[in-house]
Amino acid sequence: MQRYFFKDNSCLDRLNNRIIINDKENFHHIKNVMRMKIGDKLIVCTNDMQEYLCEIDSITNNVFLNILEEHHNTNELKANITIAQGLVRREKKEEVLRRLVELGAYQYIPVEMERSIVHLNKYNENIDRINTIIKECSEQSERGILMKYLEAISFKDFIKLNDYDYKFVCYEESGRSNEHSLKSYLDKLKDKKILVLVGPEGGISNKELEILDNNGFIRIGLGKRILRTETAPLFIMSVLGYGVEFYED
Amino acid sequence: MQRYFFKDNSCLDRLNNRIIINDKENFHHIKNVMRMKIGDKLIVCTNDMQEYLCEIDSITNNVFLNILEEHHNTNELKANITIAQGLVRREKKEEVLRRLVELGAYQYIPVEMERSIVHLNKYNENIDRINTIIKECSEQSERGILMKYLEAISFKDFIKLNDYDYKFVCYEESGRSNEHSLKSYLDKLKDKKILVLVGPEGGISNKELEILDNNGFIRIGLGKRILRTETAPLFIMSVLGYGVEFYED
Repeated sequence: MQRYFFKDNSCLDRLNNRIIINDKENFHHIKNVMRMKIGDKLIVCTNDMQEYLCEIDSITNNVFLNILEEHHNTNELKANITIAQGLVRREKKEEVLRRLVELGAYQYIPVEMERSIVHLNKYNENIDRINTIIKECSEQSERGILMKYLEAISFKDFIKLNDYDYKFVCYEESGRSNEHSLKSYLDKLKDKKILVLVGPEGGISNKELEILDNNGFIRIGLGKRILRTETAPLFIMSVLGYGVEFYED
Repeated sequence: MQRYFFKDNSCLDRLNNRIIINDKENFHHIKNVMRMKIGDKLIVCTNDMQEYLCEIDSITNNVFLNILEEHHNTNELKANITIAQGLVRREKKEEVLRRLVELGAYQYIPVEMERSIVHLNKYNENIDRINTIIKECSEQSERGILMKYLEAISFKDFIKLNDYDYKFVCYEESGRSNEHSLKSYLDKLKDKKILVLVGPEGGISNKELEILDNNGFIRIGLGKRILRTETAPLFIMSVLGYGVEFYED
């Protein structure tokens, strides 16, 4: 069933047990793209992880929905995982975004790094396109909320991010030496805010690594093989997501 | 350093501590693509997981290499993981192959299934192209051996495959109900032969599921969100690979 995501729950009309859709984009999608009619059903997801099974009551300048059922979405990971990645080319980034939405990431942050092939001043972000990708994938994978996308930031600004329980940096050499740091955190992730940095194509420079070390980032290896920058986020998100979900009890 | 992969170690001339490259493809690559000269170094990987650091001694009709160092490749997972997948479109399959090579899979098998959009009789496999993809990714990720690619088979033939310690089938509903079966196997995978089946775009039919149940396949969930057929192999390979590598000791 078609899902519509909202950034808050201001669409909710509790008094009348209904939802009013008055934003252009969702209105257009319901009326003109899906060509829905009175009586058709859809799911409204608000960012507090509530899901409302609704039936269309009327379509005027707004869409009015009667709420049939209300559920709390339980598909979301019980941890808040942000993947940050050195700036990579658009196609690669979009591929990574698609997978990360499916795998349950909370947020994605592109970071300008020393060895990034693309740079901030030439980094054109088509936010509309990115939002569409995130919406479509969220719908398909039955997410409860939309993955957040932070516009690209500098490494200097990235380092200042501090509101996390764990900050990890994926480092090749830690993988080769088979340091087992990842394992020692896997059962401690539940309900935590986690930030993971993956380098760009060219990897992380020694200078950056030193700064990360000095700012509370923990080096973790991703195994003995060299993963490309577009594969590393999928590996780490899979393993962390597995950790959160399967160590729940 | 450039890596060249060989299916056996017949290129080895132990008596003279050298390697002779006389197959067309590798010869052409060394001489014409890389334009290597006498004294240039390269790595030869044989399928017994040995790696030979070599220096070019002479290039005639063959390339003669002096062996400088010999190592056992330790980058390979200490388990033999085969990912089988319902037939999917070429682009998707190639994307999956690239990632699986990096993540350390041993073998990939495309399987015709009920809900596959593509079918065996129309399934054109460009084996040369596939081999090139596998070689390139193996080189980049510093694999010790080439991932095997089995040409597409029918579900009937797939079911007959029996030479495995564990046979898993990824099943959506097991993920939703959060069955913890995956976790209970993760520390038992070392040195094992593992077969994992991922359904095609349309999923696995009930009939197929029943047959799989009756043929020793264990249902495993991949978490609560719905993963696309091109994401599921990456998730399961990441988690199994993690299990093998981080539960080593």
